[in-house]
Amino acid sequence: MTYCVGMVLDKGLVLMSDTRTNSGVDNISVFRKMFTWSVPGERIISVMTAGNLATTQAVISLLEERSKAPEDRQNGLLDMPTMFQVAVEIGKILRETIASTQDDNGTRGKGRFTASIILAGQINGMEPRLFMIYPEGNFIEASFDTPFIQIGETKYGRPILLRGYDRNMSFEDAVKLIMVSFDSTLKANLSVGLPLDLMVIGRDDFAPLHERRIESSDPYFDAISNSWSEALRAAFHSLPDYSFDQPK
Amino acid sequence: MTYCVGMVLDKGLVLMSDTRTNSGVDNISVFRKMFTWSVPGERIISVMTAGNLATTQAVISLLEERSKAPEDRQNGLLDMPTMFQVAVEIGKILRETIASTQDDNGTRGKGRFTASIILAGQINGMEPRLFMIYPEGNFIEASFDTPFIQIGETKYGRPILLRGYDRNMSFEDAVKLIMVSFDSTLKANLSVGLPLDLMVIGRDDFAPLHERRIESSDPYFDAISNSWSEALRAAFHSLPDYSFDQPK
Repeated sequence: MTYCVGMVLDKGLVLMSDTRTNSGVDNISVFRKMFTWSVPGERIISVMTAGNLATTQAVISLLEERSKAPEDRQNGLLDMPTMFQVAVEIGKILRETIASTQDDNGTRGKGRFTASIILAGQINGMEPRLFMIYPEGNFIEASFDTPFIQIGETKYGRPILLRGYDRNMSFEDAVKLIMVSFDSTLKANLSVGLPLDLMVIGRDDFAPLHERRIESSDPYFDAISNSWSEALRAAFHSLPDYSFDQPK
Repeated sequence: MTYCVGMVLDKGLVLMSDTRTNSGVDNISVFRKMFTWSVPGERIISVMTAGNLATTQAVISLLEERSKAPEDRQNGLLDMPTMFQVAVEIGKILRETIASTQDDNGTRGKGRFTASIILAGQINGMEPRLFMIYPEGNFIEASFDTPFIQIGETKYGRPILLRGYDRNMSFEDAVKLIMVSFDSTLKANLSVGLPLDLMVIGRDDFAPLHERRIESSDPYFDAISNSWSEALRAAFHSLPDYSFDQPK
C-alpha cells in the first residue's frame, strides 16, 4: 500500500508520501514515491504515485526520459504551457502503461497493474494547482471546497485532515497536520511505512522551499507521535461526560 | 455500509451500531442492526450485523424463530451451554444462508450476499465474551490485547479507539469514546448514518444495564460532535511546532 497527501494552501503546496512498497507482507521495500522537476523561476512540478510499482516506475521513467536531453524533449513536462496539459499528458502515459501491460499478459480487467497519481505544481503566470490522476487517465482538481487529495490508504488519516485544515494555515502547521495524519495511518496499516518524503512549495517560488526525508528516528516525528497520543487523550477527557440518566 | 463496534471492559460490554442500509446512494433506509435476547439472571446475548440485508435479516429470523415457542426450541440460543456454542451455531446459520442464496441464483463466488456478525454476551458462571463471525461461519474472539471488534466501515473510527481504549475505563467513558469513533465515521462515509443503537451490558447482570437509540437530534451526540472538533483543534495546536530549520 501507500499513503500520499497533497494540500493546497493560500501560501502554496505541501506534499508528503511514504516509501513502503509491498507484495504480500513478507516482501517489503523502500522506494521513493515523490518526484520533482523544476525550471528555477519558471515552473515546479511534483508527482506522487500509488499502486503497482512497475507501472509507477514506468510512468516516471517515461516522464524523466522526456526531461533529459533537449533534442529528445517533445511535449516534455518542462515545455508544456499549463498544468492542465501536464495532467493530460501524465494521464495519457499512465493509461497507456497500464493498458499495455494488461494486454500483453492477458490479464486485462483484473486491475493488477493499476496506479493513481497526485500532480502538484505551478507555472509562472498561473496559480498553484493540485490534481489527482486516475488509472483511466482522467483527473480531478482540488479546490478550496476540497483542498487536499489523498491516495493509497486514505481512511485512517482523513478525519484529522477534515477537522484541522485551514486555507490560511502556515506551512509549519500544515506539515504538523499532515504528520499527524500519517502517524494515525502508520499505526493502523503495516503496509504504510517510514521514511516519509516531505516537500513544501511556496507560491511563486518555482523551486522547493523545503524538502526533507523523515527517517524512522526523526526526533520531531517521534515527538508528534508521542504528544498526539497524550493530546488526544486530553481532548477526549475534555468532552462532556455521558450520563445514563440524561433525558431521552 | 454499516458501522458497528463491540468493546470488552473489565466492567462488561458496550455495543453500538448504526442503522443505515443502502443499495446505491439513492436507496437508503433505516433498519435495526442490533438484536438482544436475554434470560434474566441467567444469560444475555447480543448480535450486531453488517452486510447484505436479506442475509442478515434471514439469520436473525432463524435465530428468533428458535427463541419463540418452547416446543420448537431445539439448540436455540437460549438453551446453549456456552457462548462458544452460540458462536458456532450463528456461524453455521450465517454460512448456510449465504451459500443457499448464492447457489439458488447461480451467483456463487460474487460475494454479493455476504455478511459479518458481532456476537457479545455472557452466560451465568462464565466470563463476558465478544466474537466476530465471518461469512464462512468461522470466528475470532476479542482478548485484552485486541479488546474491541469493528465491522463495516471500520477505518475512519479506528485511530481514536486504538488511542482511547483502557480496560479499566467506566461505561460512561467507553460510550463517549465509541461516540467519537462513530462521529468520525459519520463525517466521512455517507452510508453510515444516524440513528445509532447503544447497549451496555454489566458483568454478571444478565440484563441490559443501559439501552438507548440516539436520534439525529440527540443533544449529547451533538455536543460530542461539536466539542470534538474544538478539542481536536486544541490538541493539534498543543503539539510541538514544526520548524524548517530543525536539525536533520
